[in-house]
Amino acid sequence: MISYETSQNMISLLSMGNIRSERIFLSSALGRVLAEDIVADEDYPTHPTSAMDGYAILHSDLEALDSLEIQGDNPAGAEKIADVTSGICIKTFTGSLMPGGSDTLIPIENVRVDGDRIIITKPVPYGFATRPVGESYRCSEVLISKGTKLGFAEIGVLAGINRVMIRVVQRPRVGIIATGSEILDIGESASHAGQIRSSNSYTLQALVDSLGGESVQMGIVGDNKSAIMERFEEAMHSCDIIVSTGGVSVGDYDFVKHIVPALGAEVIFKGVNIKPGQHVMVAQRREKFIVSLPGFAYSSTVTFILYAAPLLARMMGRENPYEPIEATLKVPFSKRSNKSEFTACNLCFEDGRYWVDFEGKKTGSSAILTNLLGNAGLMICGEEDGDLEAGTLVRVIKL
Amino acid sequence: MISYETSQNMISLLSMGNIRSERIFLSSALGRVLAEDIVADEDYPTHPTSAMDGYAILHSDLEALDSLEIQGDNPAGAEKIADVTSGICIKTFTGSLMPGGSDTLIPIENVRVDGDRIIITKPVPYGFATRPVGESYRCSEVLISKGTKLGFAEIGVLAGINRVMIRVVQRPRVGIIATGSEILDIGESASHAGQIRSSNSYTLQALVDSLGGESVQMGIVGDNKSAIMERFEEAMHSCDIIVSTGGVSVGDYDFVKHIVPALGAEVIFKGVNIKPGQHVMVAQRREKFIVSLPGFAYSSTVTFILYAAPLLARMMGRENPYEPIEATLKVPFSKRSNKSEFTACNLCFEDGRYWVDFEGKKTGSSAILTNLLGNAGLMICGEEDGDLEAGTLVRVIKL
Repeated sequence: MISYETSQNMISLLSMGNIRSERIFLSSALGRVLAEDIVADEDYPTHPTSAMDGYAILHSDLEALDSLEIQGDNPAGAEKIADVTSGICIKTFTGSLMPGGSDTLIPIENVRVDGDRIIITKPVPYGFATRPVGESYRCSEVLISKGTKLGFAEIGVLAGINRVMIRVVQRPRVGIIATGSEILDIGESASHAGQIRSSNSYTLQALVDSLGGESVQMGIVGDNKSAIMERFEEAMHSCDIIVSTGGVSVGDYDFVKHIVPALGAEVIFKGVNIKPGQHVMVAQRREKFIVSLPGFAYSSTVTFILYAAPLLARMMGRENPYEPIEATLKVPFSKRSNKSEFTACNLCFEDGRYWVDFEGKKTGSSAILTNLLGNAGLMICGEEDGDLEAGTLVRVIKL
Repeated sequence: MISYETSQNMISLLSMGNIRSERIFLSSALGRVLAEDIVADEDYPTHPTSAMDGYAILHSDLEALDSLEIQGDNPAGAEKIADVTSGICIKTFTGSLMPGGSDTLIPIENVRVDGDRIIITKPVPYGFATRPVGESYRCSEVLISKGTKLGFAEIGVLAGINRVMIRVVQRPRVGIIATGSEILDIGESASHAGQIRSSNSYTLQALVDSLGGESVQMGIVGDNKSAIMERFEEAMHSCDIIVSTGGVSVGDYDFVKHIVPALGAEVIFKGVNIKPGQHVMVAQRREKFIVSLPGFAYSSTVTFILYAAPLLARMMGRENPYEPIEATLKVPFSKRSNKSEFTACNLCFEDGRYWVDFEGKKTGSSAILTNLLGNAGLMICGEEDGDLEAGTLVRVIKL
């Protein structure tokens, strides 16, 4: 068995195909990954613009003259605006273009109006409340780089430069196959006690969707070699990544581990010295990847996060979304094996640091999915680690 | 003007209506807020279950006998399983029910098979690799509490208990109205230089959607009293929160501040001693809220985060999603006013702490939306704060 560190290096060294892109409407772009650099095609603002409500003036008049004549007003959005010359001011509002000739805005609060004239009660520096050309950005500036995940600010900036259609990375299709004769699908009636309700497929679908992939539910297939083989082939036609659960351990009915190589896929690794999920297998057939996870709910979720999530991210030109962060143990921790262990924990941020404890977490088999509910994290203990004292700095994957 | 702290208290004291719920399919539940407690209706597992591949045995046989007779096998999902009695073992796989009479699973790796018998090479403790009844949870245990935002683990747990339909909180409808005669919508052709491309509506739509609300684009309305009034009334028919931009400052065409009270809404506050966005106004008409934001892109985004986001969250029975966290200033910071300031910053997590700097951030007016791109945060400086030295602990809103 290879170590966790080696397995992660192997994942990061896998060569991905070219990133595929598509053009979508801005209305669907939230959360998508940008496939082009967004470059400004003009200075913004394009003209000097007022940043407050007040009077556009020539700054040199401030010292030279006692009062200025108001010559009309200039509401935001006005098409034609008179010029400002010495002795003249034009009432100008937030968002209005500055009138030609003016260089400074004296706010309403800084003047007293006397008939059609203003008397300045509190002067301002040259250029006050005047947004210069290019204050926000300059023509040819890269506003948003390729590979950025589009959040609210990116959406706003794209709207502001009138980008209706955006080139984004296609969502990789991830086929999900649950194997096991004991698995009963949601909504189905149980016929006997030996059946287990499926949760893996839906946990993994939610993970795929929240990571920006497009999940394809390939359904449940019993422990039958030819049926499993067919389902995998079907998934390979339309999916970029196939994620399966079950069938990778040492039992007589664990067929997946034999079928994946039989499909002509090259096994990158099979078996990692981790707990849970030591039987995990990653394979590649041309540009497609197969990630075969163990069947227990906690094991399959953890190994998806460790192996499928970074593959999915790399396929979109993104960093691993589950890079560990540093946190402090609130309580002592007893390590249970000589493997790299991934232990469900509570993760909270207090006093400027992340803290880890295990309150309410159950110890037991790798089947306990409920341990991942709430603000959970996965605490990482290395192979060489022994028991850890309270106060130890640990690495945690924030979920 | 009230202080930022007072305004936040006022928001947190507003009485919300009852939380409205709806039943949805599990397939749409990711990211939604649970409106019921999810309670286990049985112990899980319901029967003792094997956690490994091996042989189900009576633990008392381990010391008493040299070898055990293999009496058939027990694949996962099997309907009928023979009982284990003294001297007998049954081959049993991960996920299989433990045969009646057995109490321990001896793994494949711990035995040598000799014909139809196994010889134990490495004993295990009583109950080994056997998931006891209720290992994951007990009947009547609350698995997921009302108010929880459903993530991948919650989805998996719901599938595992066969919940197809889930009661969740209805998404509050948030109507978005942009006011200003200068505003040009995305896709429209500009006819003169005084027009400004709309970005606010789309920034706010993305914020509403990512916070779990349902955005309703009410469009742009020029600086015309009756037109604005009609648009607000229209929005009030179908929306729970109306968010508007522009028209709240001291200019002659700032009509929104007059119209909101004229609609019969009670003004909770108008004007907060903050920068940006000091003219922000929050009002209430029966169970509906109006949050009138300034028109500049940076101001409207920041004030949405400060005032509309916590209202939206409270309407769903959730905590404010933008609670500040502690971070450390990497560089000195010059405060520019005697207001509470919200300054766009870079926020990164290194060496167990969050750090703040301002590299690449532009100073200038409150129109610079590009300052919120990337891994941005909003650094909070209090009214009383002066200039801050590098190393100071500051509060930051993580975006």
